[in-house]
Amino acid sequence: MSTRELLEAVATGAASVEEAIEQLRHLPFKDIGVATVDAHRAVRQGVPEVIFGQGKTGAQVLAISRALLESGQNVLVTRLDEPRAAELSAAIPATRYNALARVARIEPNPIERRKAAGVVAVVTGGTSDLPVAEEACETLEAVGIEVDRMFDVGVAGIHRLLHRVEQLRRASAVIAIAGMEGALPSVVGGIVSAPVIAVPTSIGYGTALAGFTPLLAMLTSCASGITVVNIDNGFGAALAVHRTIMACERALQGA
Amino acid sequence: MSTRELLEAVATGAASVEEAIEQLRHLPFKDIGVATVDAHRAVRQGVPEVIFGQGKTGAQVLAISRALLESGQNVLVTRLDEPRAAELSAAIPATRYNALARVARIEPNPIERRKAAGVVAVVTGGTSDLPVAEEACETLEAVGIEVDRMFDVGVAGIHRLLHRVEQLRRASAVIAIAGMEGALPSVVGGIVSAPVIAVPTSIGYGTALAGFTPLLAMLTSCASGITVVNIDNGFGAALAVHRTIMACERALQGA
Amino acid sequence: MSTRELLEAVATGAASVEEAIEQLRHLPFKDIGVATVDAHRAVRQGVPEVIFGQGKTGAQVLAISRALLESGQNVLVTRLDEPRAAELSAAIPATRYNALARVARIEPNPIERRKAAGVVAVVTGGTSDLPVAEEACETLEAVGIEVDRMFDVGVAGIHRLLHRVEQLRRASAVIAIAGMEGALPSVVGGIVSAPVIAVPTSIGYGTALAGFTPLLAMLTSCASGITVVNIDNGFGAALAVHRTIMACERALQGA
Amino acid sequence: MSTRELLEAVATGAASVEEAIEQLRHLPFKDIGVATVDAHRAVRQGVPEVIFGQGKTGAQVLAISRALLESGQNVLVTRLDEPRAAELSAAIPATRYNALARVARIEPNPIERRKAAGVVAVVTGGTSDLPVAEEACETLEAVGIEVDRMFDVGVAGIHRLLHRVEQLRRASAVIAIAGMEGALPSVVGGIVSAPVIAVPTSIGYGTALAGFTPLLAMLTSCASGITVVNIDNGFGAALAVHRTIMACERALQGA
Amino acid sequence: MSTRELLEAVATGAASVEEAIEQLRHLPFKDIGVATVDAHRAVRQGVPEVIFGQGKTGAQVLAISRALLESGQNVLVTRLDEPRAAELSAAIPATRYNALARVARIEPNPIERRKAAGVVAVVTGGTSDLPVAEEACETLEAVGIEVDRMFDVGVAGIHRLLHRVEQLRRASAVIAIAGMEGALPSVVGGIVSAPVIAVPTSIGYGTALAGFTPLLAMLTSCASGITVVNIDNGFGAALAVHRTIMACERALQGA
Amino acid sequence: MSTRELLEAVATGAASVEEAIEQLRHLPFKDIGVATVDAHRAVRQGVPEVIFGQGKTGAQVLAISRALLESGQNVLVTRLDEPRAAELSAAIPATRYNALARVARIEPNPIERRKAAGVVAVVTGGTSDLPVAEEACETLEAVGIEVDRMFDVGVAGIHRLLHRVEQLRRASAVIAIAGMEGALPSVVGGIVSAPVIAVPTSIGYGTALAGFTPLLAMLTSCASGITVVNIDNGFGAALAVHRTIMACERALQGA
Amino acid sequence: MSTRELLEAVATGAASVEEAIEQLRHLPFKDIGVATVDAHRAVRQGVPEVIFGQGKTGAQVLAISRALLESGQNVLVTRLDEPRAAELSAAIPATRYNALARVARIEPNPIERRKAAGVVAVVTGGTSDLPVAEEACETLEAVGIEVDRMFDVGVAGIHRLLHRVEQLRRASAVIAIAGMEGALPSVVGGIVSAPVIAVPTSIGYGTALAGFTPLLAMLTSCASGITVVNIDNGFGAALAVHRTIMACERALQGA
Amino acid sequence: MSTRELLEAVATGAASVEEAIEQLRHLPFKDIGVATVDAHRAVRQGVPEVIFGQGKTGAQVLAISRALLESGQNVLVTRLDEPRAAELSAAIPATRYNALARVARIEPNPIERRKAAGVVAVVTGGTSDLPVAEEACETLEAVGIEVDRMFDVGVAGIHRLLHRVEQLRRASAVIAIAGMEGALPSVVGGIVSAPVIAVPTSIGYGTALAGFTPLLAMLTSCASGITVVNIDNGFGAALAVHRTIMACERALQGA
Repeated sequence: MSTRELLEAVATGAASVEEAIEQLRHLPFKDIGVATVDAHRAVRQGVPEVIFGQGKTGAQVLAISRALLESGQNVLVTRLDEPRAAELSAAIPATRYNALARVARIEPNPIERRKAAGVVAVVTGGTSDLPVAEEACETLEAVGIEVDRMFDVGVAGIHRLLHRVEQLRRASAVIAIAGMEGALPSVVGGIVSAPVIAVPTSIGYGTALAGFTPLLAMLTSCASGITVVNIDNGFGAALAVHRTIMACERALQGA
Repeated sequence: MSTRELLEAVATGAASVEEAIEQLRHLPFKDIGVATVDAHRAVRQGVPEVIFGQGKTGAQVLAISRALLESGQNVLVTRLDEPRAAELSAAIPATRYNALARVARIEPNPIERRKAAGVVAVVTGGTSDLPVAEEACETLEAVGIEVDRMFDVGVAGIHRLLHRVEQLRRASAVIAIAGMEGALPSVVGGIVSAPVIAVPTSIGYGTALAGFTPLLAMLTSCASGITVVNIDNGFGAALAVHRTIMACERALQGA
Repeated sequence: MSTRELLEAVATGAASVEEAIEQLRHLPFKDIGVATVDAHRAVRQGVPEVIFGQGKTGAQVLAISRALLESGQNVLVTRLDEPRAAELSAAIPATRYNALARVARIEPNPIERRKAAGVVAVVTGGTSDLPVAEEACETLEAVGIEVDRMFDVGVAGIHRLLHRVEQLRRASAVIAIAGMEGALPSVVGGIVSAPVIAVPTSIGYGTALAGFTPLLAMLTSCASGITVVNIDNGFGAALAVHRTIMACERALQGA
Repeated sequence: MSTRELLEAVATGAASVEEAIEQLRHLPFKDIGVATVDAHRAVRQGVPEVIFGQGKTGAQVLAISRALLESGQNVLVTRLDEPRAAELSAAIPATRYNALARVARIEPNPIERRKAAGVVAVVTGGTSDLPVAEEACETLEAVGIEVDRMFDVGVAGIHRLLHRVEQLRRASAVIAIAGMEGALPSVVGGIVSAPVIAVPTSIGYGTALAGFTPLLAMLTSCASGITVVNIDNGFGAALAVHRTIMACERALQGA
Repeated sequence: MSTRELLEAVATGAASVEEAIEQLRHLPFKDIGVATVDAHRAVRQGVPEVIFGQGKTGAQVLAISRALLESGQNVLVTRLDEPRAAELSAAIPATRYNALARVARIEPNPIERRKAAGVVAVVTGGTSDLPVAEEACETLEAVGIEVDRMFDVGVAGIHRLLHRVEQLRRASAVIAIAGMEGALPSVVGGIVSAPVIAVPTSIGYGTALAGFTPLLAMLTSCASGITVVNIDNGFGAALAVHRTIMACERALQGA
Repeated sequence: MSTRELLEAVATGAASVEEAIEQLRHLPFKDIGVATVDAHRAVRQGVPEVIFGQGKTGAQVLAISRALLESGQNVLVTRLDEPRAAELSAAIPATRYNALARVARIEPNPIERRKAAGVVAVVTGGTSDLPVAEEACETLEAVGIEVDRMFDVGVAGIHRLLHRVEQLRRASAVIAIAGMEGALPSVVGGIVSAPVIAVPTSIGYGTALAGFTPLLAMLTSCASGITVVNIDNGFGAALAVHRTIMACERALQGA
Repeated sequence: MSTRELLEAVATGAASVEEAIEQLRHLPFKDIGVATVDAHRAVRQGVPEVIFGQGKTGAQVLAISRALLESGQNVLVTRLDEPRAAELSAAIPATRYNALARVARIEPNPIERRKAAGVVAVVTGGTSDLPVAEEACETLEAVGIEVDRMFDVGVAGIHRLLHRVEQLRRASAVIAIAGMEGALPSVVGGIVSAPVIAVPTSIGYGTALAGFTPLLAMLTSCASGITVVNIDNGFGAALAVHRTIMACERALQGA
Repeated sequence: MSTRELLEAVATGAASVEEAIEQLRHLPFKDIGVATVDAHRAVRQGVPEVIFGQGKTGAQVLAISRALLESGQNVLVTRLDEPRAAELSAAIPATRYNALARVARIEPNPIERRKAAGVVAVVTGGTSDLPVAEEACETLEAVGIEVDRMFDVGVAGIHRLLHRVEQLRRASAVIAIAGMEGALPSVVGGIVSAPVIAVPTSIGYGTALAGFTPLLAMLTSCASGITVVNIDNGFGAALAVHRTIMACERALQGA
């Protein structure tokens, strides 16, 4: 019995007020329309169902993918290694796999370009940061956001970055990805006024501390207004940008 | 001599090409129009000049404040304790000081409300997080962004937060501030689709690790797309929101 | 309008089903009887309102205390230093202050001894652990639980502890408090079958790591079934025991 | 010669006082009735002998299992991987193995349901926490405690947890298991008044710090009276609950 | 009633065997001659009662000192700051206070030189290590062990240490005290065959990590057979040497 | 169009001043002679192109090597394991591979000995430090700097080092490599007045902390003027020496 | 030319004083009798040459072993895994290998029992600590020291340890080995007056921190005079005991 | 008797060879000309005696200063706070004190400018880094090295640094000082080929970790050949540069 049915029963006298109070307590929240569910759904608006591949067997990934496709949704799988990607592709030939990003996408529904999103810059300090960058790019593209890749523009050869200043300033948001000392977001943050999401990577050895050194450096950045996500979390950075784009779209709708 | 003057000298033969090349090397970057300067200025558009009060003497804060006022700008001083605030107020009576936030503002120019910004929610887990929250609120208000304060809605009494779901969902961005175990942004992130900036606070003792426990917890949040700033950095969170608002304003201009 | 009133309005036709659905969304959770509120209240059953004194001014502590007393409740203030305790006592002469425990109690209502609770042992490794132990004892006593204090029975003089074996085994629960290497709970856990709550203290220097060494040691205890709370958290340990006692009381009610 | 025999020898003059003193020094403690032994046995009452499988060869596990079975006891093996479980099952066909929990049980003696225990809730934040949860469940069931499993009710989708409030509140104790930011026990602790044992898991990457982030977060929980065990220690949490149940049983016996 | 009295009562029939068994359970361990007590006493043979001054009030230190003196023992107080030392001296004029060592000694009984102990070298890397060294020296002297001080012979001027090689080799044991990089014990350990107790000090700043850097360095020493005590623990090092000297004395008695 | 060509166009009127200003903004930095590029090139003067082998496939290493050789440069590959080195050697027989150093060098151009460089000492504490030492040596030799190897002269047998004092003092710079407690650079720094670059190695277990203990020890060295590079970074130490040698060469040119 | 020969040349006029001074500078230290060498030899008196097997190939271990045997010495190899031990045994049939200890011994010379050493107790908290304990035992036995093994007497079942009090007190020194919370040495240190060398082991998971938790706990022990060695360093503990035995032997010689 | 006298005695027969050997053992190292002493002196050539002021009383600083002045040397005191500096100045009016640098200098002997040293750049990221920078500058100037100060050129406003490229490239060495994320040395290292000494400062809060974040970032710099000193160690960086200058001077002498 849904909330509506319950209330109708009260209206018709088929249920007493006491009975209704008791039942309201136990109805699934989504039935009484508690906001969390809607909010939850809202978060996912325009986002394909995402499968976090790490720790799942190939069979599990396949089963969930099929269920999502049957319910009419696109599929995005992150942290999927090549053997399991091959399994998925064998079973669902429409699968497109980006080995560098460890991301698989199955998209029966066309991705609509989010025009309000403009172009989002994904910038890396070195070529070793590419897997994380590609995870971000694939996620952005899966939600319809256009990406401008600027790779290997780290601060030890600062001219490489400065060469791209105009290009950077055209971006509606910047995902700045760096390992080692993690200085890239500080420099980028001083150059652009757009949101800058910093992603530390686990590149490097010894004092790189598996990504904790760039993480700490980014959190301590002397460029104000930079925000940071977990080490190697290209997916999270993309979703953070997506939240910004949704804010802009709401602002446009309100305008 | 500006770049333009230099080029005009070349055009008229008053300067040789060789001389011009030599001079171009030494001109201030802003003269040859290198983007960084413009970018830099752009970052500050609509932002009053900010003085980081920590480690500065009252006399230094006063001198910088006066210089800024003379150049026609509003002044925002963060991390300013009461004795130095009293000094500042004595010298410049227009100073308004928020002791909780440790923020002083001197605003000869009226703050124009940023309509595109909507309302930004500033949410805290406990009452001990108020100083950080107020620093964020003062900064937002100083750049013309309307704030909706929701304080003391931490997760150990989850109904307090759930009671505010509708209010939270109306926000164009949320700054979620919490010490202790830092769980608030995870719950908020699951409820709203707007950008969520998490600010860990140094509240707590022992295993709270002076804010590192909520910092780590927020970075590891199971709610996707949350971003994080340094411990107690209410100012930085406000500027991160400001970057988002500027992105929305650019989107509106482009629409 | 309460949930009941709303439902009655639906029953009488004074409100339509649509209107009721809309209103249900916005009613305070406690009105629609969402369990969290009841649960919350249940947690506090038999517990006086607790004021965490750290970071509050004497005036704030006094104001909250007065409000609680006016609403007919007992008051327990933790982490209250002597100057503020003196302020409180001056204003409310019924205040009893345990300086070692940094706890103040104002109890207009008599504390009823929880018979089902038996006696709870509070055991410390050294005399330096007393402040934490006393915080636990005061909290237990404030909720009506009888305490058996066994102080300074650390493991470097193991006979002191062994001398108390019978006494320990009579306890319905044991709070084992130790700094330094934190070995006490391991030995106690091997001796008794009752719940053992381990509390690390910040006693010691250098490698004691301000309590992290006993914390880690207790979490790694070779005695199974030991649980641990935050460093110096005597209050938390007492509340953990209180949860156990409430479970026993429910078991007795069900018997 | 037992203590009794010795004393009888003194009473009859067969042994001098001096000889008795000397012998008392050397008698095994269990002979002079030192409590530790009894206590030790008491701890194990109702608990099958437990074999910690990690670091033991299949042959060792088999040998110990056989010895225990021969002495008439049930066997519980934790941290046993599949190859060694297969070895054990091949040799002792009555072995039941839970691969997810990495637990094997051999129970010639029927497990008697502990009625005083009520039902213990085992709650997890995500599906990745299942191995730890299952280790806890298997241990609880092996000592006769009924389990109510509520898996994947993490805080980023808070409605999933709220949907279970009534169910949670019926539990006599709750084992709350979570990785990532470890916020689940804080929310649960605010909802129920029963004992809450928090178990951090090593799920997650980067800032999850192999379980140290949820561990620290749980120890710093803003919900009072929560206790914590070692990372991934489902077995320890179950034994902590068992200690609580034994306390309740003693309370019932005394009632 | 002592064990002997109890046994005599059994021998004379004044107590039954059953009564004796019951009583034996409850007698203080020292009465039934359990070894721990003797062992405990043995540890202290030749050691004055030691009062750890840190965290005790002047009045407490005085009270304990008086009690010890009345029972005929010498007194050694460690970690005693000047104001409390002045209090002690004012009350007990025989007090000798070493301000650098923060040690007070009151010795009504003459200290007998332990001839078997030979001479123990106390070596420091720098002059800043003196307080820790003096704490060790005072403790050694209080138990009758002769000390050879060699201060400021750190490894950055290795000739200073090499100049003392013969002197070092005459020592029956060496306490090697160093802050900063803590290299002194490694070099000393390569030069002498005697026991080397390494004491890290909290001297230095930044990467000295308040003594953890020399602590870790000493534990990782490439010179085999070096042992280490807690940071700044000169007292502990002296007692470790004392254990060695007692071992030698027992060997001599056995010879 | 280069800067010069642009300026010539302005001089001849072929370009207007406005056009020139616009173009200057977009020219590659190296064209407008911004120093960074020259500086960048200067850094590499005399340095072969270096390929960081870690994380690259054999095919990638080969491709980059071939491109460098075709452009007339020598090749230095660091962190190259044996299988990939074999691949490289098979394809380019002129490859010389130092398996211990994990370094491959292909040098069609003869290496000219840098006379101003004198001889650089590479000193290790133990034989386990050899891979790091050899990486430094190979890099130094690849840039024409003569190396004096002194291996296994650690401080626990200080005479081994003292035996080499004269030899050490002849060095124009010293690379001091050590794991364990990392004391070698402190002793060396006290003996020589030349630049000392300390390299911690990840040799050791437990408290060696994978190289962090010697790293911290070296940074805290009581020998002044020692500098430190990342753990196991023999290559970086060699390049730091190379910067020194370049400074000396510039001093010589200026003399 | 040795020092003696040089001095004889001076005595006979075959060398001038100036020449002699010059030569003395360069002679190996052992020639001019600098103490370090003697000291160094002294440290090794009675100790077989030790080969640290970790990181060495089977061939290297064999080569060094043969060289040592040819020079008439016994051989002790630590940290040697089974495959390389098999290689060694195949080549040198007299090899005895303790797989648990990972130690190989080849002893053409009979080991003389060090009578002054008495018996050294090697005590462990659990059976998982056996490899470390056996490494200590093998090393002690290789230098002629008799060992008394007491394994699996950890503090969670304190009666197991108390049962051995007399046996413990007979030991001339105790090596106390424990993982987990590392409490064993604290209890042992309170029972015996002999030197206690604590060895933390890397047993355990999560908060055991790979041995750092017992390490820190042991360094913070409330039992005075305990010393500590690196994690899992059974060999180092044995050599520390050996230094004590040598001190006793010197005391005996002096007596 | 000096070595020479001893050898002369051997030459004349006044001492036997045996006696000479015995005596050589005991002569102070400096007598037999062991290099360490000379080396030690060499290190100090051109360096005034340095007094580390931290932890010394004003009286001690004065006494040492007077002793040095009497022996004809200049004095450099580091880490000297204002009260003690005032004491020193009162007693020795020639004292010059730099309060920002916390450095006092007394220089009766004129400082000779080291021409071979060129100019050393001291660069800081922010104005908060000035105390560390001034400590470096004062030290450099005290040893005769000319300094070029470039303060507040941090990477978040990268144009400030780029504006100084030519100036930076003229430096014979660069000391790059930065707190926060510590990115400055990476950018500088990419611009210049001179030695770059990076100094992390303890500026910042939270994730700045009191200087450990810039320390780790600098050690992990993606710019090769950068070396690092301890946090806030401006003095050490200056001495490291001094070692480089001495190397250049030796190269010039050899040229």
